[in-house]
Amino acid sequence: MRIAELSRSTGVPVPTIKYYLREGLLPPGELSSPNQATYTETHVHRLRLIRALLDVGRLSIAVIGELLAYLDQRDADPHQMLGKALAATERSKDRAEDGNLAAAEDEVVALIARRGWRIATDAPARHSVARAIAALRQLAADDLLSHIDDYADAAERIAVADLETVLHLTDRDAMVYGAVVGTIIGDSLMAGLRRLAQEDRSARAFDSVAGAGAAQGPAA
Amino acid sequence: MRIAELSRSTGVPVPTIKYYLREGLLPPGELSSPNQATYTETHVHRLRLIRALLDVGRLSIAVIGELLAYLDQRDADPHQMLGKALAATERSKDRAEDGNLAAAEDEVVALIARRGWRIATDAPARHSVARAIAALRQLAADDLLSHIDDYADAAERIAVADLETVLHLTDRDAMVYGAVVGTIIGDSLMAGLRRLAQEDRSARAFDSVAGAGAAQGPAA
Repeated sequence: MRIAELSRSTGVPVPTIKYYLREGLLPPGELSSPNQATYTETHVHRLRLIRALLDVGRLSIAVIGELLAYLDQRDADPHQMLGKALAATERSKDRAEDGNLAAAEDEVVALIARRGWRIATDAPARHSVARAIAALRQLAADDLLSHIDDYADAAERIAVADLETVLHLTDRDAMVYGAVVGTIIGDSLMAGLRRLAQEDRSARAFDSVAGAGAAQGPAA
Repeated sequence: MRIAELSRSTGVPVPTIKYYLREGLLPPGELSSPNQATYTETHVHRLRLIRALLDVGRLSIAVIGELLAYLDQRDADPHQMLGKALAATERSKDRAEDGNLAAAEDEVVALIARRGWRIATDAPARHSVARAIAALRQLAADDLLSHIDDYADAAERIAVADLETVLHLTDRDAMVYGAVVGTIIGDSLMAGLRRLAQEDRSARAFDSVAGAGAAQGPAA
């Protein structure tokens, strides 16, 4: 198909498609004449992936570029490959005050030991968790951290479901694709479910009228 | 304190502070002379909050502006106030194909009924969850949705911890502040914990060497 049709079938404007081509997010089409390229279903799928990572996953164009580069790369060990791809989605801007962050990193080490988690010493998620802990402390909103093992329990439950979803796949590429998309879009899914569950608890706690959609079911 | 000292104690450059002042994210200092304003600890705290929401919470300046406006507003009903503040953090860009999204919205209605959750009919989180579901279906990564009740279980567990953290507070402002910061920064905390738990499960599934930090504890 030509670029105009690619645009029609994905809803992405032609100038935006050209921008993704220039940034290398989208592989070039096949030249059918010096000025004309044709695109395939692969391009349609890739464009949808870019838009979902952008709109629902809230990733930046730069991060999406790195992530797609890992998805396109073939690697022998799915565990390593998955780790590298997801690492690209971690933000590593370091602006936190050092003292706070160092203390938070010690807390993450203690948490990992307490849970018996097998985690690489250089796993970027260690740093993400430490930054969130440091931010909560700095903002005096760290009461929440007295429940950190409840959050870790929930994370384990989520990870079990995540891995069950991908482990039955026999194709390694499909496994990594499923894990990456499921993790990024799944973060947005979880954030939404968390707000729904919060609203339910809050409505019950304050016995507030929750609108016409209120159900009668038992609290969890 | 003067703006230079405010900058030193927060690590935020003076031009950036001036930008936040212009955007109304930071309330103006008190004028001590026509060209000189003084700032207080309130400004220090507000600046740290802005930076955490930006760096750790990954919110945009526009969304942070809305959120702070709700935090500054005094409202009678903490449940309503909390709902409004968190609603500001939902993205409502609508680019999803309509058919997909309408079907996903029906799934959310069914999920809420199944869980017995009390949710306002116009709660923005309904839409966020629907968008994530629609994106997963469109990207053919919807195997994950066969475990959606596991994710909902995890969300309930998280919400119980979230609400326990704030419900014991007697000051309503403190309650709303704690809930908002805990939810936004807590999303990043959960995303990090999920990746750690995934890495642990993945390391066990593939029996991959997880680096020097590997622990011997039992799997969850």
